[in-house]
Amino acid sequence: MRERSHWGWGFKDRFPDREARTGIAAHASALLGFSAQEVLDPVPLEQIELREPAVAPPGDLVEILSADREDRALHSYGRSYRDVVTGFSGDYRRAPDWVAHPTSEDEIERILEWAGEDQLAVIPYGGGTSVVRGVERPLEGAHRGAISLDLSRLDRVLDLEETSRAARIQAGATGPVLEAQLQARGLTLRHYPQSYEHSTLGGWIATRAGGHYATLRTRIDDFVESVRMISPAGVWQTRRLPASGAGPDPDRIVLGSEGTLGVITEAWVRVSERPRWRARATLHFEHLYRSAEAARRIVQAGLHPANCRILDPLEAELNSVSSSKRAVLILAFESADHAVDVLLGRAIEIARDAGGELPDPPRISGPEGRAEGGEADRWREAFFSAPYLQNVLVSAGVIADTFETACTWDRFQELHAGVIAAVEKALAWSCGVGKVTCRITHVYPDGLAPYFTFLAPAKRGSEISQWTDIKAAASDAILAHGGTITHHHAVGRLHRPWYDRERPELFATALRAVKRALDPLGILNPGVLIDP
Amino acid sequence: MRERSHWGWGFKDRFPDREARTGIAAHASALLGFSAQEVLDPVPLEQIELREPAVAPPGDLVEILSADREDRALHSYGRSYRDVVTGFSGDYRRAPDWVAHPTSEDEIERILEWAGEDQLAVIPYGGGTSVVRGVERPLEGAHRGAISLDLSRLDRVLDLEETSRAARIQAGATGPVLEAQLQARGLTLRHYPQSYEHSTLGGWIATRAGGHYATLRTRIDDFVESVRMISPAGVWQTRRLPASGAGPDPDRIVLGSEGTLGVITEAWVRVSERPRWRARATLHFEHLYRSAEAARRIVQAGLHPANCRILDPLEAELNSVSSSKRAVLILAFESADHAVDVLLGRAIEIARDAGGELPDPPRISGPEGRAEGGEADRWREAFFSAPYLQNVLVSAGVIADTFETACTWDRFQELHAGVIAAVEKALAWSCGVGKVTCRITHVYPDGLAPYFTFLAPAKRGSEISQWTDIKAAASDAILAHGGTITHHHAVGRLHRPWYDRERPELFATALRAVKRALDPLGILNPGVLIDP
Repeated sequence: MRERSHWGWGFKDRFPDREARTGIAAHASALLGFSAQEVLDPVPLEQIELREPAVAPPGDLVEILSADREDRALHSYGRSYRDVVTGFSGDYRRAPDWVAHPTSEDEIERILEWAGEDQLAVIPYGGGTSVVRGVERPLEGAHRGAISLDLSRLDRVLDLEETSRAARIQAGATGPVLEAQLQARGLTLRHYPQSYEHSTLGGWIATRAGGHYATLRTRIDDFVESVRMISPAGVWQTRRLPASGAGPDPDRIVLGSEGTLGVITEAWVRVSERPRWRARATLHFEHLYRSAEAARRIVQAGLHPANCRILDPLEAELNSVSSSKRAVLILAFESADHAVDVLLGRAIEIARDAGGELPDPPRISGPEGRAEGGEADRWREAFFSAPYLQNVLVSAGVIADTFETACTWDRFQELHAGVIAAVEKALAWSCGVGKVTCRITHVYPDGLAPYFTFLAPAKRGSEISQWTDIKAAASDAILAHGGTITHHHAVGRLHRPWYDRERPELFATALRAVKRALDPLGILNPGVLIDP
Repeated sequence: MRERSHWGWGFKDRFPDREARTGIAAHASALLGFSAQEVLDPVPLEQIELREPAVAPPGDLVEILSADREDRALHSYGRSYRDVVTGFSGDYRRAPDWVAHPTSEDEIERILEWAGEDQLAVIPYGGGTSVVRGVERPLEGAHRGAISLDLSRLDRVLDLEETSRAARIQAGATGPVLEAQLQARGLTLRHYPQSYEHSTLGGWIATRAGGHYATLRTRIDDFVESVRMISPAGVWQTRRLPASGAGPDPDRIVLGSEGTLGVITEAWVRVSERPRWRARATLHFEHLYRSAEAARRIVQAGLHPANCRILDPLEAELNSVSSSKRAVLILAFESADHAVDVLLGRAIEIARDAGGELPDPPRISGPEGRAEGGEADRWREAFFSAPYLQNVLVSAGVIADTFETACTWDRFQELHAGVIAAVEKALAWSCGVGKVTCRITHVYPDGLAPYFTFLAPAKRGSEISQWTDIKAAASDAILAHGGTITHHHAVGRLHRPWYDRERPELFATALRAVKRALDPLGILNPGVLIDP
């Protein structure tokens, strides 16, 4: 099996050697206008200090529990900038005492039982791709130890019901693993978060993950038909239904619960036929706001593009999509049933009315083949590679991170300007220089999801403090301008201070009541989302 | 102001005189194959016995409290068959002690305060169109009295935000009242439940009401951008957001809470431009299942028809839509932005492949005018008049009621056959004869919402017992075949036994915990949805 990096994003073999990294760093320096530093190597696994497990496992669980060095290191952190820097520097104080690899719900129940008896924290772990400190143990608090509960052995498509286009899938299946099983039957979940290679269905549900597509089924919420969760108080299993008006929707409490209420073990999700018709085009605009206006009119026209992604000029350049110094709108339509060129044509018409220019003709493809190449493809490649680039930049002393929000259309310009100003000020103050860019990833009739990237030179050893200041400035600005602290990256520990201001206090009261009812001993993912 | 019937559906002036009713009853008898009975008159308002209010109101609330005979009678029941029969017969034991007509949130808070101090039940009341016993007082329990909290004086569109296509609307606004205010700006909520004339935004949110449209925004859940609710524990106000991934969605606890957690006072909802392009067609099929198969393929093709409504042969005949003895599929597309005839064309192609016949050419209309007439219009007229017909049938000794469910496509045929068989058996047993019909109102990629109507001769004085047997048989069959007890009519008191079987027991535990946190004294709508 291809090995994962214990400290950085993704597969070990995707971390380039020192020479290649030096080249990438030099290229980045040229683009960014500030210098990357000498590339360093991460502290090797063998040199990491790990405490002895604080508790001994019960005999009947020995076979599924691991205290292996690499396993514990891998399960210590998610993959935020902060996590990668921490792991790179060899700080593994948060390593769990044990990593559990259950193969059945019975074993999960046994682990929860043990944790209750021995006052252990249980951290449900899917792909470990959290960027909000959602999969790490608490250091404070009353727990005697911590178990990382890895769902990866529960990764099968258990049922495929083609008439209703629905599949029952185990929570530990990653994107590629579940898609391979669906593809054998000509179907697809068609949910592609940037973390797709490693993140899992259960993780997506727990964190309300966003996919790649711009409209309609934008987030995993829209795919869930029913869900199964093991909580300390018992099993939570909802009925398979396309819709119901019977009381508040039980699935909507599980969605976003971030492992604090139970361990999601499987779900029925809505799948679809693989698209066969495609049509796409790229338009250029003088200013980000003009392209956003075009996107607004397109989505309010009820056109439902699969992709309606906007890059500001610097974002387009950094991602090798375009060096035109203009904002880029990537439009794509797709269908498994019918040609979509008419829809694209209408969207282009709207975009041109809003000031867009179409440098190249649209690319249309029918059932016989898919048009490849062009700016959209360059974008997609950059999209899935970005987290790997972060590994390299960390090793080269560059702070590189992203954050996203969502707001209504009327607030976008003010929010964008406010966030850019706040981040630029924080970059100047913390790092001297730096860049911040914006793209738009999802559009709704009533609003949009702007997604920001910031890059700056790190002061080695103080990166996390620099980064914390920038992140706080950005988050404050988002809240001040009517955004949400996250469109699709959950709350974890990282977003807690802003989440606590964003959500109604009475909802926190309600959620705490639910938490106490389902997890009375408070063993599940303590410190994440809410306090008991 | 046009007066509402204190016992039956809708406006007083829509209840025909005895002669007209006799004519309608005769016509119905001919269609149904059993005889309606002599038409009777409801017990007049003056002859109704009402208890004296059990409690005296506090001085500062006197101006907004009413113990008026008609007001109390009107607020005693919803408008299920059972309610109409009960009101017709003059049984007003469930009349509230007082009807409150607050004009502000402060007054609502004061009412909740008073109710807490004096142990009174508070029943939030929108349009009073509940068909699940959702707006009546408890007779059992510890409450010393009951207040019906009528939101109708809070009926304004407070803000209209055209860039984001969103409006802030008070909870007491009925469909026509809010649409009139939106129409002045060229916008529409485009949510048309059958109760549209009388039901309110707050009621829709509290009960997760379904609208008229078959795909995309089928239920009010999809329209809510943020919501404001006054609960005994304080104010619950969510942020206006197009989407957020920050924790479980707080709005989704309010949606479906049926007045048990708080009083919804306003919401930001997603509005849209009024449609200008329309295209529709009607297809005939040999069998209901063939038409359902066509609808499945259309919705799974991603075509999003505004209407994709199926009537079985008897339903089509009873609604004067068609007497062809075939199943009828009504297809309609509409858009505010672009022509939709191509989409309709593809949907017709799919429907024909599935065995549909197109007796008449499609009706296409552009921005200049709307094509009127045809089977779809006859259907719409019948749709909004149906509840008025129920008043007449009650007076003529005919049991007439509907119920709906939702299930995945794979279960539809078995569920349909099982429900029809169970209801026919119950009709034979309870009434000797009777008819049951089915239509399909909403379609989803993974399932559909079948809607059943039953009609049978009543044994006067025993109608409610007959009806209860039929309803129980239908509900048992729905649950047995994987359906939900309601697609869009909520739980109330009526659906409790089946809801309690349908939802996960752990969810009930969670919901009870939320209830205790928000309404610790248990004053809000006791007996509905959950027990504390």
